[in-house]
Amino acid sequence: MKPLVLYRVDLRAGDPASALERLDPAAPLLTGTDLAATRGDGVFETVVLVDGVPQAMEAHLDRFERSASLLELPSPDRVLWRTVVERVAAEMDVSRGAVKYILSRGDEATGEPTGWALGFAPTRHRTGVPPELDVVLLDRGYRSDVATTAPWLLQGAKTLSYAVNMAALREAGRRGASDVIFVSSDGYILEGPNSTVIARIDGEYVTPPVEFGILPGTTQADAFEALREGGDRVAVRALTVSDLSDADALWLCSSTRGAAPVRSLDGVAQHVDHATTERISAFLNARKG
Amino acid sequence: MKPLVLYRVDLRAGDPASALERLDPAAPLLTGTDLAATRGDGVFETVVLVDGVPQAMEAHLDRFERSASLLELPSPDRVLWRTVVERVAAEMDVSRGAVKYILSRGDEATGEPTGWALGFAPTRHRTGVPPELDVVLLDRGYRSDVATTAPWLLQGAKTLSYAVNMAALREAGRRGASDVIFVSSDGYILEGPNSTVIARIDGEYVTPPVEFGILPGTTQADAFEALREGGDRVAVRALTVSDLSDADALWLCSSTRGAAPVRSLDGVAQHVDHATTERISAFLNARKG
Repeated sequence: MKPLVLYRVDLRAGDPASALERLDPAAPLLTGTDLAATRGDGVFETVVLVDGVPQAMEAHLDRFERSASLLELPSPDRVLWRTVVERVAAEMDVSRGAVKYILSRGDEATGEPTGWALGFAPTRHRTGVPPELDVVLLDRGYRSDVATTAPWLLQGAKTLSYAVNMAALREAGRRGASDVIFVSSDGYILEGPNSTVIARIDGEYVTPPVEFGILPGTTQADAFEALREGGDRVAVRALTVSDLSDADALWLCSSTRGAAPVRSLDGVAQHVDHATTERISAFLNARKG
Repeated sequence: MKPLVLYRVDLRAGDPASALERLDPAAPLLTGTDLAATRGDGVFETVVLVDGVPQAMEAHLDRFERSASLLELPSPDRVLWRTVVERVAAEMDVSRGAVKYILSRGDEATGEPTGWALGFAPTRHRTGVPPELDVVLLDRGYRSDVATTAPWLLQGAKTLSYAVNMAALREAGRRGASDVIFVSSDGYILEGPNSTVIARIDGEYVTPPVEFGILPGTTQADAFEALREGGDRVAVRALTVSDLSDADALWLCSSTRGAAPVRSLDGVAQHVDHATTERISAFLNARKG
């Protein structure tokens, strides 16, 4: 997908005004020794625009900071990154779309961190109407406790080392599906390659805990707010594979797609709750930022 | 570290002569949407130069092909990549050094794979005399069977998604060590973040099997050849953590450092066999390619 807008972020600049430089997105930006490209050594976030306004900015900045901390990168300047996202959004001039922003450990030749932000146009996934998903369960290989016992595995950080996530999506395609829910080696539901799971079980909406080494879901958090406003019960707790079989509805939440209902799981048709999906979408689409 | 030479590899070109373009290594090469940089989605190899000659080229190309296949990337053209490594080596004009070559899934804006190769000058690790290493054991989080049961985890591929490897080396630093041996969640010795393990147990030199989801070691293979030539017994088989405690000498093999002896493991001093280390180094340094 072609980006519409590219800004380079100079992390040594003293203030946002002098840090930001608009460049041609099709022109080279990074050296061949940038550690983003040679080691996947950096972190990122993707923010969706609704009516041109970046959504859940604070939650995304919280997670960006958390990811940077897990990778021992310099703590991101929130004012700077908020400014760059707003600048990209303003210059895109689209009602829906997405801004991706990236912090790399930088060029190994200079030791300087690098930053950039990309504005992407709306796609069929950014219409505000989430797609219905065919999902497979795939082993993530890790126990649910590795974020605590082995923090160097970086579970819970949104890193640029996403080759496994992309390979899992290709595996889903081979199995006739379009998305994945990862399962820990000890049998717990984790997250999607770029989404957060919500399961409705006995009338309660449940998402797994971040202590399992998964990302805190910015869209899932807003979806929970929508559900609570509607009088529904929500909970954060462990879900096993058999819990999922008992669920009467499932969603995968992400910034770009919203709360997307799961219509099949490992080839078995799932009940899609259109009314709840629309209620969450309406809430997400009515956010002011 | 600053590279001395950079070549861009045009993967659409029909022949090596027109595919290679020498560029300034300090100038931008990759767009901000190259999947190497945004997803760690590509593969690489690093070849050491001895007397200006790239070593173990065929073994590296074999592994490059294997990695590309695991990531479902286009199969690398061996003639093209051999040519670019030789060209970089020739233009570096150093007796020792290293050439790193990279294949990325490419720019997501165009869908075209990207390739490049970097020539690095000698460092203290590329003198032909391997350093002595302080090593810690760290959990890799994966069972020893995931390469078979969960190929989407890409274990056994040398990918650009190396953030975990870099985080493990930082963890080693925090523990007063300089390197790592990864252990599977079911207790088997795997590999280092960028090296292959050899343990001497009861006079036999042992390295773990690639079926455990580790990289086939190009330098370890040559070290085994050196050992066999000297009349030593070598074997590929599973090693447990307690096997390592029984080992009377340990090495970590990599292209850039050679067969580097382990002088401490988790803070416990290890016997360094200088004679064997020198014998392997002499063999590695006498290779003709």
